[in-house]
Amino acid sequence: MQSNSLFAKVLNSINPINKNLEAEIQEKIDNKTKPLGSLGVLEDIARKLCLIQKNLNPSVDKKGSMVFAADHGITEEGVSAFPKEVTQQMVFNFLNGGAAINSFCNNSSIDLKIIDMGVDCDFEDLRVSKKYKIAKGTENFAKTLAMTREQAILAIEKGMEAFFDFYEENPIDIVGLGEMGIGNTSSSSAVISAICNIDIASVVGRGTGIDDAGFNHKIEVLQKAMDLHKPDSNDGLDVLSKVGGYELAGMAGAALAAASKGVAIMFDGLISTAAALIAYRICPFIKDYAFSGHKSVEIGQKTALNLLELRPLLDLNMRLGEGTGAAIAMSIVDNAAAFMRNMASFDDAGVSNE
Amino acid sequence: MQSNSLFAKVLNSINPINKNLEAEIQEKIDNKTKPLGSLGVLEDIARKLCLIQKNLNPSVDKKGSMVFAADHGITEEGVSAFPKEVTQQMVFNFLNGGAAINSFCNNSSIDLKIIDMGVDCDFEDLRVSKKYKIAKGTENFAKTLAMTREQAILAIEKGMEAFFDFYEENPIDIVGLGEMGIGNTSSSSAVISAICNIDIASVVGRGTGIDDAGFNHKIEVLQKAMDLHKPDSNDGLDVLSKVGGYELAGMAGAALAAASKGVAIMFDGLISTAAALIAYRICPFIKDYAFSGHKSVEIGQKTALNLLELRPLLDLNMRLGEGTGAAIAMSIVDNAAAFMRNMASFDDAGVSNE
Repeated sequence: MQSNSLFAKVLNSINPINKNLEAEIQEKIDNKTKPLGSLGVLEDIARKLCLIQKNLNPSVDKKGSMVFAADHGITEEGVSAFPKEVTQQMVFNFLNGGAAINSFCNNSSIDLKIIDMGVDCDFEDLRVSKKYKIAKGTENFAKTLAMTREQAILAIEKGMEAFFDFYEENPIDIVGLGEMGIGNTSSSSAVISAICNIDIASVVGRGTGIDDAGFNHKIEVLQKAMDLHKPDSNDGLDVLSKVGGYELAGMAGAALAAASKGVAIMFDGLISTAAALIAYRICPFIKDYAFSGHKSVEIGQKTALNLLELRPLLDLNMRLGEGTGAAIAMSIVDNAAAFMRNMASFDDAGVSNE
Repeated sequence: MQSNSLFAKVLNSINPINKNLEAEIQEKIDNKTKPLGSLGVLEDIARKLCLIQKNLNPSVDKKGSMVFAADHGITEEGVSAFPKEVTQQMVFNFLNGGAAINSFCNNSSIDLKIIDMGVDCDFEDLRVSKKYKIAKGTENFAKTLAMTREQAILAIEKGMEAFFDFYEENPIDIVGLGEMGIGNTSSSSAVISAICNIDIASVVGRGTGIDDAGFNHKIEVLQKAMDLHKPDSNDGLDVLSKVGGYELAGMAGAALAAASKGVAIMFDGLISTAAALIAYRICPFIKDYAFSGHKSVEIGQKTALNLLELRPLLDLNMRLGEGTGAAIAMSIVDNAAAFMRNMASFDDAGVSNE
């Protein structure tokens, strides 16, 4: 990789969080008119936001959500309950405003951007930019590399570009990262298994809904793929190229780009969390900018979040992806910023504090 | 009680939910462009909202929050970490916009109303209505009845009136019910112990933060009170008058009034849930109109919610009350209504469904 590449430039501009403000932030929180610590997780969020924004009056008024779409060669192995065509059909559904993520973004004033990273379709629709597309889906990683290492780097750079383009139009304070890609729970399970060094069988879930036979088949296919590739746990690009997906690369790139701009990141469910792991292996500072939106019903996410030291804000038994959990969770972050900016202190309000 | 009392009139006008629409609601949900059941709890919320509003396109655009304030004679026993004066100080903080509930309501366009049911203070401030006030706090229920049965009925009627007055100004779709009252975790623990028929020691928590000695003392005081009064588990008014509080009565009354108007109710943490139990013992239909906003760190809430067949929407480790958890949880209900109204069906969107 060349040192003047976008990839290298972005990595060099991600700063570790400066914790100088910590004591001042805590003092401000503890002087709010409420029992010590009584806002629980909202206090944790407020602390993190203040550190990200280097500001004791944080704001996430301007919210964005990016949905990265791509197809997966692994669907040839019959690991998904839905046909591959659903990926492209759902891209149109997003563009036409009919999907769940559209409802949630409209409802919470979140700007939404759909990015084709690798859908198996030549979109004629001009609303789908060809700028970020790497290929018409990954190769079948049960048989070969999902993508080359060069493609993996390029895909991450395209995710970075997509974020910077979006950010230029909308200088957002927080970005939700979601995805659409039939077959991507298989890819994400493999990524989590590889990066967290845990057995694939303990990570695999039922995706959007497969039966017992399908479930056992999925584990078998993935176990063989892991044995074939032996991805390097410490090398995010190696894992991505061997068992990843283009939408995972896009989300990882967007997360790295967001951190480089000091923008808070809201990850979503299992797949988004797998992308977070890839970004984390490339640059560990990413976790200081990150929130987890929704607890996945897929069991692999918990191990991944432990590594990232994140706790999902919501547990609503959702298993849809698209960034839906991230979109809903943003209002919690919004409330955390609001109390930090607006609540009175004991002194201001003349309330006894003992 | 007279049959033409407000109490009787409201009870007579609460209808059990008509489940005729259930099949049609489920069909609409299942035809949305997403895997079956993949919106999890949001689908449960949407189903319930449709039944409450008798409408397949539910809306909670107009949101309200009511905070009932009162003092507790039981504070004489030293069961709370904060002095009683904090109740009245916090009423001013609410009116001046400085409390957590103000931040959250402003942030989510929720109309907020503060109601003095029984604060130990003659408010000179004209923003505090005297219309709903029963007394300057309850009696010390470690020694005598918290209030008479007549006062209990009157207090519930005042809560009903407060809701109707608020509703006339703001015809809301959903109401959050919160409270302020130093000492009210003691009262609420006793209410839950009584109504759920469980040992007081297994219900009591640390309220806003007391130490080990204070904790053991609190259990001892409450155990003696329960032995003294032996409240009747099946009689909400008996429990309320023996160990309840005026803000609990206010919330129970407001909940009953809201159900009578077909308005969805969002309960908050432990104390709000204790009020829900009182309302439930008075009219069991109430649970069909109810949502639970936030899981309490106080252990009694879970037993109470099991009885009400409710599951808290949020678990953010908050322990503040004021309706704060309810206010934050309303955005989840809002998102559930939004997907039900706005998401495309498989047919509309041309997405494969198999």
